Amino acid sequence: MQSLAVHHIGLAVADLADAIETYTVLLGGTLEHREVLADQGVEAASVVFGSSRIELLAPTGADTPVGRFLTKRGPGMHHVAYEVDDVAGALADLASAGAELIDTVPRRGLFGLQVAFIHPDAVHGVLTEVVAVARVT
Amino acid sequence: MQSLAVHHIGLAVADLADAIETYTVLLGGTLEHREVLADQGVEAASVVFGSSRIELLAPTGADTPVGRFLTKRGPGMHHVAYEVDDVAGALADLASAGAELIDTVPRRGLFGLQVAFIHPDAVHGVLTEVVAVARVT
Repeated sequence: MQSLAVHHIGLAVADLADAIETYTVLLGGTLEHREVLADQGVEAASVVFGSSRIELLAPTGADTPVGRFLTKRGPGMHHVAYEVDDVAGALADLASAGAELIDTVPRRGLFGLQVAFIHPDAVHGVLTEVVAVARVT
Repeated sequence: MQSLAVHHIGLAVADLADAIETYTVLLGGTLEHREVLADQGVEAASVVFGSSRIELLAPTGADTPVGRFLTKRGPGMHHVAYEVDDVAGALADLASAGAELIDTVPRRGLFGLQVAFIHPDAVHGVLTEVVAVARVT
C-alpha cells in the first residue's frame, strides 16, 4: 500500500480533560476537535501540532476497548494511523501481502472518516490504522 | 513550550531489517537513514511517509534501554518526539510547569540532533522527546 503521511498518533488516556490540558498548555498544541462515540465506547479529542495530529482517547466505561487497554497496560501509546487515498485498496494490498487485518472492510471511524485497523502482529507489535481523509456520512 | 510538529514516532523492534521491510514494502514508506549508536546500545533507522517520520529502534544487546523495553513489553510503540526551535528553552518551560524530566540538559541524539526526554509520568504514560532539527556536532 502507499501511505501518504502519518495521519495521527492515538493515545489512551484516563482523563480526557486533563490530557487535553497537557497537550495544549504543556506541549503547545491546538485542540482541533472533540467527540463522543458512544457505540465505540470512547470520547476522543484531536490536538494538532503544525501538520501533525495527536488523538487522545478516553473510555466511556471500563468494559470498552480503550477501557480494557487502560486496565491492562495503563495510559500510553495506543496506535499509529496512516493516511491513504483509498482504504479498501490499502486493505486489498495488505491482505495480498499476507498481513493480518482486524477490519477487512472500511468502517466509519472518529470524526466521520473512513478507517480500518491492521493487527499489531502484522506490524511489529504496533496497532496500525489506515484512514482516508474523505469523510463518509 | 511550543511544539512545531511531531518530529517522529519511535518504535522498538527486535529485527531491524525485517522492520525496515515492513515499513517500506508493506506500508509504503521510504528509508531515510540508518545508524548504529554503540554508546546508546541501539541501531536506528528512519522511514519517512510524506512529512512524517517513523524511527525504528533495535537494541544492540539485551542489557540496553531498548533491549530491556523489548524484554518487558515486547516490540511496539516506544516514544513520541516533538520538534522545537530550542531544546534548552523547552526544558526550562517544562521544568517551570513542574514536568518531570529525564534529561535536564540537551544531549546528542540519533542522527546528530539535539534532544531531551521527558518522563512518561508527566505526559500520561507516553515517553516524550523534544528535538531541534539543527544538528549538533
